[in-house]
Amino acid sequence: MDADALSEFGRRDWQTESDLQPVRFAMIGLGWWTREEAIPATEDSDWCETTVVVSGDHDKAEDVAEAAETAITYDEFHDGEATDEYDAVYVATPNAKHLEFAESAAEFGKAVLCEKPMEATPERARRMVETCEEADVTLMVAYRMQTEPAVRRARELVDDGAIGDPVLVHGSMSQDLLEMIPNPDQWRLDPDLSGPGASVMDLGIYPLNTARFVLDADPVAVSSFARSEDDAFADVPDEAATFEIRFDDGTLAACSASQNAYRSSHLKVVGTEGEVRIEPAFFDRQDRQLALEVEGTTADVDYEQVDQMLEEFDYFAHQLRTGGDVHPDGRHGLTDLEAMAAIYESAEQGSVVEL
Amino acid sequence: MDADALSEFGRRDWQTESDLQPVRFAMIGLGWWTREEAIPATEDSDWCETTVVVSGDHDKAEDVAEAAETAITYDEFHDGEATDEYDAVYVATPNAKHLEFAESAAEFGKAVLCEKPMEATPERARRMVETCEEADVTLMVAYRMQTEPAVRRARELVDDGAIGDPVLVHGSMSQDLLEMIPNPDQWRLDPDLSGPGASVMDLGIYPLNTARFVLDADPVAVSSFARSEDDAFADVPDEAATFEIRFDDGTLAACSASQNAYRSSHLKVVGTEGEVRIEPAFFDRQDRQLALEVEGTTADVDYEQVDQMLEEFDYFAHQLRTGGDVHPDGRHGLTDLEAMAAIYESAEQGSVVEL
Repeated sequence: MDADALSEFGRRDWQTESDLQPVRFAMIGLGWWTREEAIPATEDSDWCETTVVVSGDHDKAEDVAEAAETAITYDEFHDGEATDEYDAVYVATPNAKHLEFAESAAEFGKAVLCEKPMEATPERARRMVETCEEADVTLMVAYRMQTEPAVRRARELVDDGAIGDPVLVHGSMSQDLLEMIPNPDQWRLDPDLSGPGASVMDLGIYPLNTARFVLDADPVAVSSFARSEDDAFADVPDEAATFEIRFDDGTLAACSASQNAYRSSHLKVVGTEGEVRIEPAFFDRQDRQLALEVEGTTADVDYEQVDQMLEEFDYFAHQLRTGGDVHPDGRHGLTDLEAMAAIYESAEQGSVVEL
Repeated sequence: MDADALSEFGRRDWQTESDLQPVRFAMIGLGWWTREEAIPATEDSDWCETTVVVSGDHDKAEDVAEAAETAITYDEFHDGEATDEYDAVYVATPNAKHLEFAESAAEFGKAVLCEKPMEATPERARRMVETCEEADVTLMVAYRMQTEPAVRRARELVDDGAIGDPVLVHGSMSQDLLEMIPNPDQWRLDPDLSGPGASVMDLGIYPLNTARFVLDADPVAVSSFARSEDDAFADVPDEAATFEIRFDDGTLAACSASQNAYRSSHLKVVGTEGEVRIEPAFFDRQDRQLALEVEGTTADVDYEQVDQMLEEFDYFAHQLRTGGDVHPDGRHGLTDLEAMAAIYESAEQGSVVEL
C-alpha cells in the first residue's frame, strides 16, 4: 500500500476558486438543526450568509432574527416577500413540507439546498425535481456525507481500485430520538410529515446514500425487516429496521437503522483485495476515522473534525458561483426516495422489491 | 460502567474439574483443518488424545498416523474396527458426509463432536439428532465461537443488561477461498457435498450462530440476496450473500458472507443503552478485541489469543467426563440448518421465509 495514498488527500478536492461573492440564504424552517448547525455554518463561511429567516410564525422568526436582516413567515415567503434579499434557500422543514418551499423558490428563480430526505414520497420528490428543472434553478440535496473529507477519500480509494472490486457493504445508523427530542408528538414520528417511517427515512438514508456515493452505484432491488414496539412508534413501522440492497454493479449491502437504540454508526466496504471502514461514520461533530486494510495491513487516518454543514454550504455556494454542476442533485435524491419507498413496501409485504 | 465488569471474566467459566481421564478421539476426515488444527489441539490437551485417524484411503491415514496409534479407512471405521481404541469421534468430512459417521459412532456408543454445519440439509441434520438421541450418545456441534472467551464474555454482558435491550445485530465473514485452497473442484463448491451453497453454509453460519449464542435467541424469519458471477462459483448461488434475520426476541440482524472477497469479519450488537463489538470476530488464530460502549465511553479488552480448537475439545471432554450437558448440541445445530435452508430459499424466491 502506498502510504502517500492516504495522506495526500486534499480536504476540498472540489475547490477551484476562493474569491467568491457570498451567496445570500433564506433559511426556511427554524428547528434546532437550522439554528444550531446551519445558520452558524453560514456565519463561519466566507461564501455564504444568512440574510433572511423564515418560520411558521413571526415570533419564532424574530427570535432567530439576530442572525439575519429579515424575518418573515412561511406565508410571507410564499407571497414573495424579501426576494431581493436572498439568492438561495435552505429548506429544513419537516419532510412533507419541502416541496412547497422549493416550488416557491423555483418561481422566484432562487437556488435550492434541500435537506434529506428530499420529501416524504417519490412522487413529491419528482415534482420538486421537475419544478426546479423547468425553472432552471439549481437543486441540491443536503447529504452532508458527500462533502465529508473521509467519505470523499473512501470513494476515491474504491474508485482507484484500492480494495479491488467491491463485494459487500455494511452500514448502520442508530440513535435515541426520544432522548434527543423528548416529545412523542414530534414530526419525525408523524407519517403525515415524515413520510412512510421514522428510522429508514431519517437514518437509514445515511448508509443507503453514502454506500451509493462511495460505490458510485445505484440500487436495483431491496429487502427489509422492520418493527415497532414502543408506544411512541405506534404510527410508524420502523422503530428499528434492517435492509438489504442489491446494487447495479453487483455489490450487496446489509444495513440497519433505529431511532430507539444506542447512538452508533459505521460503514464498511469489503472488496476482493481489501476493505475500507469509517467508524464512527454518520453523525455530525465526530472525529472521523478512515481505515484502509489491504494484505493484512491497516492504515488508519484520523481526520481533523470538519464542520460538515460549513463544508456543505461552501460546496453549494462554490458551485453556484463558479457555474459547476452540483453532485447530490435532485435526481440523485429522488433515487433514494424510490429506494426507501421500496424498503418500506418490502418490509410490509415480506418480499423483495425491484427498482 | 463498572471497570471490573470486563476484567473479572474467567477464561473457562464452564470448568468445574481439572483432573480428568483423557477422552480418546477417532479423527474422521483428514483435511488440512483436522491435520493442522484439530489433531494438534488434542496433542496440547490434558483431557484429549488422538488415538485413531480415519480417512478415505489407507495411505492418507498412514501419512497422518504418526499422531495416532491406529490408522483406518472410512470403510473399516463403519465396520467397527478399533472401537475399543476411542471414546469419541470428531467428524470433519465434507458436510454431506457427516451423517454416516455420526450414525456409525452412535451404533458403537461413541460420543460425537461434529463440525459445523452439521450436515448439508435440515433433513439429514435431524436424522443425526434423532440417531444420537436414540442411541443416547452425546452430540455436540463444533461451533468454536461458543467456547471463545471474548464471545462468551459478550454473551454475558448482553445477558447482564450491559447494553440494555438488544435492538440490532451486524455480522459478516468473508475470505478468499480459492486463494486459500486453489482448486475449483473442492468440495465446498460442490452442492452434492456442501449443501445448498458455499458462503452462507461455510461462513454465514458464523454471524448467524454467534448472534444466536450472544442474544440467546433464535430466528423466526429470514430474507436474503445472493449472487455468483465467478466461473468457480457456477454451481452455487452464493459467491456473496447478504441476509437479514428476525429473532424471537424482536432483535433484527443484518449479515453477510462471501467466499470470494477480502478476509474480514465483525460482530456488533447495538442495544438501547450501549453496544458490544468484536472485530476481528470469526477467524481462528486472531487476536480478539472486545469493545463495550456505554454512555459514550468505550472499554476495549484485548484478549490473549486462545487456541480455539483446544478450548472446544477441552470443553467437550470436560462435559463428557463430568456428565454435564453440552451446549451447542444437535438440536441447536439443526436450527442453523433450518435457518440456512430458509436463507437459500429466500434468495432464490425473492421473499421472506418464516421459520
